Amino acid sequence: MSGRLGTVVIVGVGLIGGSLGMALRASGACSQVIGADQAPLDEAIAKGAIDRALPLSDAAAAADILVLATPVRRMATVVRDSLLHLKKDAIVTDTGSVKTHLVAELTPLLGDRYVPAHPIAGGEKSGVAAARADLFQNATCILSPLPENAIGAVRAVSDMWEAAGARLEIMTPEQHDEVFAWVSHLPHLVAFGLMEAVGDAATDDCDPAEYSAGGLRDFTRVGGSNPEMWRDIFLTNRDAILKVSAAYRDQLERFETAIKNGDGDALLAAFARSRITR
Amino acid sequence: MSGRLGTVVIVGVGLIGGSLGMALRASGACSQVIGADQAPLDEAIAKGAIDRALPLSDAAAAADILVLATPVRRMATVVRDSLLHLKKDAIVTDTGSVKTHLVAELTPLLGDRYVPAHPIAGGEKSGVAAARADLFQNATCILSPLPENAIGAVRAVSDMWEAAGARLEIMTPEQHDEVFAWVSHLPHLVAFGLMEAVGDAATDDCDPAEYSAGGLRDFTRVGGSNPEMWRDIFLTNRDAILKVSAAYRDQLERFETAIKNGDGDALLAAFARSRITR
Repeated sequence: MSGRLGTVVIVGVGLIGGSLGMALRASGACSQVIGADQAPLDEAIAKGAIDRALPLSDAAAAADILVLATPVRRMATVVRDSLLHLKKDAIVTDTGSVKTHLVAELTPLLGDRYVPAHPIAGGEKSGVAAARADLFQNATCILSPLPENAIGAVRAVSDMWEAAGARLEIMTPEQHDEVFAWVSHLPHLVAFGLMEAVGDAATDDCDPAEYSAGGLRDFTRVGGSNPEMWRDIFLTNRDAILKVSAAYRDQLERFETAIKNGDGDALLAAFARSRITR
Repeated sequence: MSGRLGTVVIVGVGLIGGSLGMALRASGACSQVIGADQAPLDEAIAKGAIDRALPLSDAAAAADILVLATPVRRMATVVRDSLLHLKKDAIVTDTGSVKTHLVAELTPLLGDRYVPAHPIAGGEKSGVAAARADLFQNATCILSPLPENAIGAVRAVSDMWEAAGARLEIMTPEQHDEVFAWVSHLPHLVAFGLMEAVGDAATDDCDPAEYSAGGLRDFTRVGGSNPEMWRDIFLTNRDAILKVSAAYRDQLERFETAIKNGDGDALLAAFARSRITR
């Protein structure tokens, strides 16, 4: 049914929010897409990411589904500023890359109408300029429905992401946070750490970074990611990250012990396994 | 002067040895390029990487410059098998990615005619099939001349690499090994460790590696590198690698402490620095 999702409001029209708007407008699944942002939204309108822009209070009042697509640390503020304006049956969802932290922050404010989600997409570039209608085609969107969510609310959010092209997968907030600590947050921490340690190794005589051939260079895309965004992710997914980072350091120490002992077989077995993980 | 380098013998005609042969043959700087290898060299000849193939003893007897381009751990064996056949004034050099280990192994056998070198080039693919005449164009070749080397021997090896298109840079074997421990060996150890730790995190219910989006995926090229080659590098550059890996783990622990303490400013400062190192 065309327009079945009603009015979708996207707060934070960057790469993710903008791409969602473009995909939803192309799909015909909602009657309109309204954008709200701290920054001007002329470019988002020109690009066709939203039908129109409204101040947050007016946008919230119009929303059937309100999508929080700002940085994670701003989401609670957005919710507080929207709360008095939201329709009684409006659904609120988000695109944040951490989940338990947001559930703890937002559920006390929103109760059963908050349906947590995390579309797994992105790219080197951020901002609405990089948005694309097909960003979520064949991407996975993790849904973390809460026990208190009404089935209709979960269905509406699922419907929205499927209309945008994503495949859905269900995880608890805790599962989500540990999985993404492993495959996204830890790799970034590892890369930032490598860049920092190599930088620290520079002396007046010699800066190793000048000789960055293969190896280090593969880490620089990750190590060049948005510092503020990653600070927020590390601080808001603290427990899972501390757990996986410690497990990772233990693994490095096992490698060091094998190197110290000249145990080539142990190294070879691990490196061969890493080809399989790959 | 055309052919000024005389006969260059390349032992181990893979990506590096094959590319060197192609570049030298194109440059006209040597009178001929002879290949010696454990594997058949038909493809190397068909590709124009060498003029002809000879058994190691005959090749060694013909060499003005003998280039060791086998895996590092085979080089001492090749030298032992060549020693009785080498002309008195033949020069021996290598392409190995570790230097102090090779100096300790080869100098007792070769004395002042061994001139250590390491061309910084490579790629995802190995083997002569991936060899290219321009692999060393604008690449750096590290030369680690020893105090006992005759100036003429150092000059011949420099001349050869410049004829192949490389820029030369001088480092002591110790400097070389620490710089490449930082920018090449440690990044590979870090990536192998990440793949292994993520693999270990899989349970019957959930395998995080299945969700490898950005982040982890950037590590998989490095983590998919040749296991035997990397085992050998880690074992033969042991001291430098243990040193930099421990420094790296300390850095990760500093990040963990900042995360534990909610110290976003410390994280932000480090991540911003990593953009500069990049």
